[in-house]
Amino acid sequence: MPCNTFGIREGEKAVDLPSEPDAGVYFIGRIRTPWTERKDCPKNARESDAVCTVELDPRFADGLKDVETCTHLVLLYWMDRAPRGLVLQVPGHYGTQHGTFALRSPARPNPIAMSVVRLLRVDGNRLSVIGLDCLDSTPLLDIKPYFVSTDCVPEAEVGWHKRKE
Amino acid sequence: MPCNTFGIREGEKAVDLPSEPDAGVYFIGRIRTPWTERKDCPKNARESDAVCTVELDPRFADGLKDVETCTHLVLLYWMDRAPRGLVLQVPGHYGTQHGTFALRSPARPNPIAMSVVRLLRVDGNRLSVIGLDCLDSTPLLDIKPYFVSTDCVPEAEVGWHKRKE
Repeated sequence: MPCNTFGIREGEKAVDLPSEPDAGVYFIGRIRTPWTERKDCPKNARESDAVCTVELDPRFADGLKDVETCTHLVLLYWMDRAPRGLVLQVPGHYGTQHGTFALRSPARPNPIAMSVVRLLRVDGNRLSVIGLDCLDSTPLLDIKPYFVSTDCVPEAEVGWHKRKE
Repeated sequence: MPCNTFGIREGEKAVDLPSEPDAGVYFIGRIRTPWTERKDCPKNARESDAVCTVELDPRFADGLKDVETCTHLVLLYWMDRAPRGLVLQVPGHYGTQHGTFALRSPARPNPIAMSVVRLLRVDGNRLSVIGLDCLDSTPLLDIKPYFVSTDCVPEAEVGWHKRKE
């Protein structure tokens, strides 16, 4: 059975990916964090108060106008070290099998992570934020304002996860 | 001044994009909605109770295991008709200039939209959801479970937007 950085555990299943991508993304910056190895990353972003830095490519710096008025942002970034074919996974900290789309694992067909972060300040093309758990130098894809009206759902539940608590 | 589907308004600014993409995404399905023209789409997802259908490519269907236990999901999808170089925009319904990263406009360097939806049911590789505002046949990039612990921030504010209310 093939092995990679993540490995394939018993109970996991990978599928063949399409032969060609359908569209291309630009890395528009890098995320600077204190974690250079996967084992050091927090299990999830709420576990850490570390201040991380988003370094936006200067060509896009005008796009930050008014971002400083946001208390929270949605960041999208590219988990470039994750395998993309896994559809069933057995995350080590759960030990049970779940579908990729029921997990926030970086291993997914499009390894795009989404994190809600608290914005501390904007200095030119650099943003200081709290709420990330990714590796240092992770490629940035997008920055969005977080709107309570559409993004905040206090009553949401993840049933399979709740049953494990 | 160049013109496209969206047009470039007074006060808007576009930059040159990198010559090559840095990574590729797969369209893993399509989103079926009642809206076939941009003018018919709701201004934002909270304006509509329309039931939309997410059709996942059958090759990835195993990845839906346990998704049915989630009340809400995060969907990522590709706004394939939007221009990618705009850094300053003057959205018609606001009439004032804002940076792309302070807006949820589909026009951005990586036109990846993020919507939180309510899941009604899963039938095989089809999900019925409420909370979308995109065009029919929009390419799907990802499905994630929505976790209140990391995704819900009731106190978040978008200052520039609040001042306009």
